Amino acid sequence: MVNEALSTSNGSASSRSDGSSSGSESSKESSRCSTPILDAERHERLREKMRRRQDSGDKWFSLEFFPPRTANGAVNLISRFDRMGTGGPLFIDVTWHPAGDPGSDKETSSMIIASTALNYCGLETILHMTCCNQTKEMITGHLQKAKRLGLKNIMALRGDPIGEEWEEEVEGFNYAVDLVKHIRCEFDDYFDICVAGYPKGHPDAENYEDNLRHLKEKVSAGADFIITQLFFRSETFLKFMKDCQAIGITCPIVPGIFPIQGYHSLRQLVKLSKLEVPQEIKDVIEPIKDNDAAIRNYGVELAVSMCRELLDSGMVQGLHFYTLNREVATTEVLKRLGLWKEDPRRPLPWAVSANSKRRVEDVRPIFWASRPKSYIYRTQDWDEFPNGRWGNSSSPAFGELKDYYLFYLKSKSPREELLKMWGEELTSEESVFEVFTSYISGEPNRKGYKVNCLPWNDDPLAAETNLLKEELEKVNRRGILTINSQPNINGKPSTDPVVGWGPSGGYVFQKAYLEFFTSSENVKALLKVLKKYEQRVNYHIVNVQGENITNAPDLQPTAVTWGIFPGREIIQPTVVDPDSFIVWKEEAFALWIEQWAKLYEEESPSRMIIQYIHDNYYLVNLVDNEFPLNNCLWQVVEDTFELLNSPA
Amino acid sequence: MVNEALSTSNGSASSRSDGSSSGSESSKESSRCSTPILDAERHERLREKMRRRQDSGDKWFSLEFFPPRTANGAVNLISRFDRMGTGGPLFIDVTWHPAGDPGSDKETSSMIIASTALNYCGLETILHMTCCNQTKEMITGHLQKAKRLGLKNIMALRGDPIGEEWEEEVEGFNYAVDLVKHIRCEFDDYFDICVAGYPKGHPDAENYEDNLRHLKEKVSAGADFIITQLFFRSETFLKFMKDCQAIGITCPIVPGIFPIQGYHSLRQLVKLSKLEVPQEIKDVIEPIKDNDAAIRNYGVELAVSMCRELLDSGMVQGLHFYTLNREVATTEVLKRLGLWKEDPRRPLPWAVSANSKRRVEDVRPIFWASRPKSYIYRTQDWDEFPNGRWGNSSSPAFGELKDYYLFYLKSKSPREELLKMWGEELTSEESVFEVFTSYISGEPNRKGYKVNCLPWNDDPLAAETNLLKEELEKVNRRGILTINSQPNINGKPSTDPVVGWGPSGGYVFQKAYLEFFTSSENVKALLKVLKKYEQRVNYHIVNVQGENITNAPDLQPTAVTWGIFPGREIIQPTVVDPDSFIVWKEEAFALWIEQWAKLYEEESPSRMIIQYIHDNYYLVNLVDNEFPLNNCLWQVVEDTFELLNSPA
Repeated sequence: MVNEALSTSNGSASSRSDGSSSGSESSKESSRCSTPILDAERHERLREKMRRRQDSGDKWFSLEFFPPRTANGAVNLISRFDRMGTGGPLFIDVTWHPAGDPGSDKETSSMIIASTALNYCGLETILHMTCCNQTKEMITGHLQKAKRLGLKNIMALRGDPIGEEWEEEVEGFNYAVDLVKHIRCEFDDYFDICVAGYPKGHPDAENYEDNLRHLKEKVSAGADFIITQLFFRSETFLKFMKDCQAIGITCPIVPGIFPIQGYHSLRQLVKLSKLEVPQEIKDVIEPIKDNDAAIRNYGVELAVSMCRELLDSGMVQGLHFYTLNREVATTEVLKRLGLWKEDPRRPLPWAVSANSKRRVEDVRPIFWASRPKSYIYRTQDWDEFPNGRWGNSSSPAFGELKDYYLFYLKSKSPREELLKMWGEELTSEESVFEVFTSYISGEPNRKGYKVNCLPWNDDPLAAETNLLKEELEKVNRRGILTINSQPNINGKPSTDPVVGWGPSGGYVFQKAYLEFFTSSENVKALLKVLKKYEQRVNYHIVNVQGENITNAPDLQPTAVTWGIFPGREIIQPTVVDPDSFIVWKEEAFALWIEQWAKLYEEESPSRMIIQYIHDNYYLVNLVDNEFPLNNCLWQVVEDTFELLNSPA
Repeated sequence: MVNEALSTSNGSASSRSDGSSSGSESSKESSRCSTPILDAERHERLREKMRRRQDSGDKWFSLEFFPPRTANGAVNLISRFDRMGTGGPLFIDVTWHPAGDPGSDKETSSMIIASTALNYCGLETILHMTCCNQTKEMITGHLQKAKRLGLKNIMALRGDPIGEEWEEEVEGFNYAVDLVKHIRCEFDDYFDICVAGYPKGHPDAENYEDNLRHLKEKVSAGADFIITQLFFRSETFLKFMKDCQAIGITCPIVPGIFPIQGYHSLRQLVKLSKLEVPQEIKDVIEPIKDNDAAIRNYGVELAVSMCRELLDSGMVQGLHFYTLNREVATTEVLKRLGLWKEDPRRPLPWAVSANSKRRVEDVRPIFWASRPKSYIYRTQDWDEFPNGRWGNSSSPAFGELKDYYLFYLKSKSPREELLKMWGEELTSEESVFEVFTSYISGEPNRKGYKVNCLPWNDDPLAAETNLLKEELEKVNRRGILTINSQPNINGKPSTDPVVGWGPSGGYVFQKAYLEFFTSSENVKALLKVLKKYEQRVNYHIVNVQGENITNAPDLQPTAVTWGIFPGREIIQPTVVDPDSFIVWKEEAFALWIEQWAKLYEEESPSRMIIQYIHDNYYLVNLVDNEFPLNNCLWQVVEDTFELLNSPA
């Protein structure tokens, strides 16, 4: 019989079928969650991701940032995280500023910036931590807080001692290795630990060999990988790597790349790191030291050619960039190396958080589609995803609106810019209609300024919304002030560049959705019209006073986005949920006042117009359940205007 | 402004939108589960269902059965439950046989029959219980057991006292009212309680007024509704109903209808109930007493006209039928009254259980599609649906296979019939292929007998399977022995008579599925072919020795049936789950031996052929993930045969 032959092919089929190392048995052991796994990487810790790239041969990069000095700087840095996140870094890291109250809750602290990158920008994040001049209790406190915030990676450093001469403290943290041991001792295997390597030797180490020995101690104490200090020649790194391997260091060693971006920043860095700039570089730079663009171009050239040598050596899998919180040079280098991978494919229709607590989160109410950070903030205390959610009275409530305003809700644009976009002076409700219409159409307003954002949408129009542009423009002009919408989709490939998401080989679907503010007069007519669509359209209409009109059956959520994928359960990442709509409407109405009305003087006519809208308009959401047919929501609006214009 | 006008229309919109009495607020209070509610009735208790029918004006009927004497009788009765269940009874009830060990675990006991109707046949069920000559402890024990089995409705009766003369027991249960009080006292509001009404007076009551007074006491003690003893004239019931109302009985009173089915059964029942048959009926029956068909026809006529009078009176919403465990007469009456409603629409693609513990169950593995009772049995100890399910190692395991065989797995057909269908004598594996082919084609086998069932399918081919008939026939002929399959469906209306399910206005989808036994030689070729379909087809191939070959990513389940409905989350009632496939394959392989091989003598060639298949064949399941394209699974099989036939 053929059983023996089959047993063999069986073994290979089984291991071939399962990406992970030990086949079906290992998968069995892991407690499988009820949420379908869309993206295996989302479930891995950093060292596993690194290993996966090592195995697959995919090259990667990472980005280092330092915490900003001001709140405005923090807002800008977070925008930069979002933009640079699109290039696909394996992780980012945030340096520890001992002088800047790094473990505090200040919006500029290392801790909060790292947490923001992880939780709100969806970036795998390493938090630096230095240990010298700190007590065990302080360090443990910082680590506990990092853990609480969802951070899982620490770059363990000694840090610069305070004062001129450094002395060992008995029982204190004198070296990075003490911190590594402490983390492993107190937190077991919870954190992935990174340590620093010095290809040119540590400035305080007696010699190069001592330096290597210290590095090996750090690895033996539990470090998972090494990132090196910057260097100027690829040979420096490659020699260092060989020397490390020679003394038995086997963990990944990631070269730190510093694209020269300006004369002064180079000088400062060199001074801090006690490195010497090679003569051939000095020779080029000195003559052009006042020409920033020329130096940056040279720095990019230099970095690209050094990175190419490193990658070509076959010894380097990933590159770590010291960005100095700047975008242009690093992005340019990465693009030229072919490492910058803007993947239009999204794992889910909304921006996922990198906090492992949320890794099974696979459904959100559609209302926060343009405000994902707000949604993450307001649900940060939830114990369980996706089950500890909205409607369940036993689950924790949404976070308070007022907390949120403290920081994350801040608009990226300054007041003057907002006034130019939204009007220095409003004369009627129609002035507001015009602002919405300009935002949708992309045409400049009366004063010639483009409207790039609205209080409910901090970004320009989504590509998907563009599919509805013509209709949206028409209805906004007439006072249907749209803040969220999606077209219906009847089974497009999951790789579709505009509406696709999830793994390839699947199909995505949507029900048409429209959400808008409009006057009570319009709502009165709309409700009459909706009777004709009772079987087809689900609606939910609320105002700031708490009126609440809906035909949602048993207040159940309605799935409005879902996907079907090979070998998986159905994913339904977006729903219209009646309960959370009540939470959302508080935020949506508050934005009129907080972001728009407050631009104007109290008692001013402009402010009173916005206040009037806030007090009297309704927030409406409509779902067309007939996703295979043409979207009927425009007809609903058309019918409403027809009714309003017909003689009573 | 228009706010006031809106507030009014708001109120009406809100109450209109919500079917239940108190609008959105009441829905809010109820703890909403994460499972979408497809069918509100499934979540209601019997008295609520009755009230809902009362409010909507929908007429209904119910059916009374008594427990069978033998195990074979039980199998037949369960089939009858299934058949009569399709007519849409609001509930069925099972009488209490004090002499038949009614509370025991015997397959013929009142308790087990009622539990089977509820749990396995999906019927709302009332269990009768009599109290005379019983201790409180015995009664409480029975009630606790009923509760444990999921029964929620009790018909509280006194029962017939043992011995000629009946005497009140001090502290004992002397009347039904004592039982009603006891149930309410010990089980609070858990049970819905039904009591008996006697339109002609209770045989033991002193007079008609005493009888009414006792009935009122039973209702005051906590009974929810009344079912009456049989009667022969509609006036009898209507007078009784008015008299009940006159003394303040306001709960539903359901008339008990007894279609006369034969001379002897009528005489016996009349003797037991101490009723008198009206002279006009006697006059008709006596002359035809030996002509069963004539009596039954007369009985049907009589019942139909009496039921019409009752319904026309406007006082009667539901009719309760004393079936005497027979089908024909009652079904005929119901059909002629227009109450028999064979609703081809299914709430879910599989037969739901009526046990309230399972009311949120909305997903099952596809493997038990033809054996839903087996699935219910094997998961009866699960604490949670759907979350306490298959893959999760922390959830309870499937019930033991061996328990199941004790009763529920029994084939409905006797051995002789099975031998005619499946072959008195098998000569080769090909004889088995022929049996499968005959089952699919509906053509008689060599000996001229139709094959109406197989060990894996106790019923004729499903309508849906007929869609694949031609292809199935072709592959079975060649030794691809199919036991489960479904076509792919790309968004048919939920009201489709063949593949539809769930509420109207929705769309249903399926991935093509094929499950079959086949030889190891075929599997070897199949595995080679499947490499070409790696991205498209998920497979799972096992044998009785435990070989296990699959390409399911991370052993996740694959949804193969799902539905999109207005105002609801996605429902995915059927999945292919790798973990439960392993459980299913034990059952699937065991059926070869238990149901087929054991028909033959030990050591006989026929038995050895089945044993050989059991020992050497593989069980294969295939899912085609490309539901919008043409089903590729037939091509996979075709390619396999091509490979087998090609010169090595």
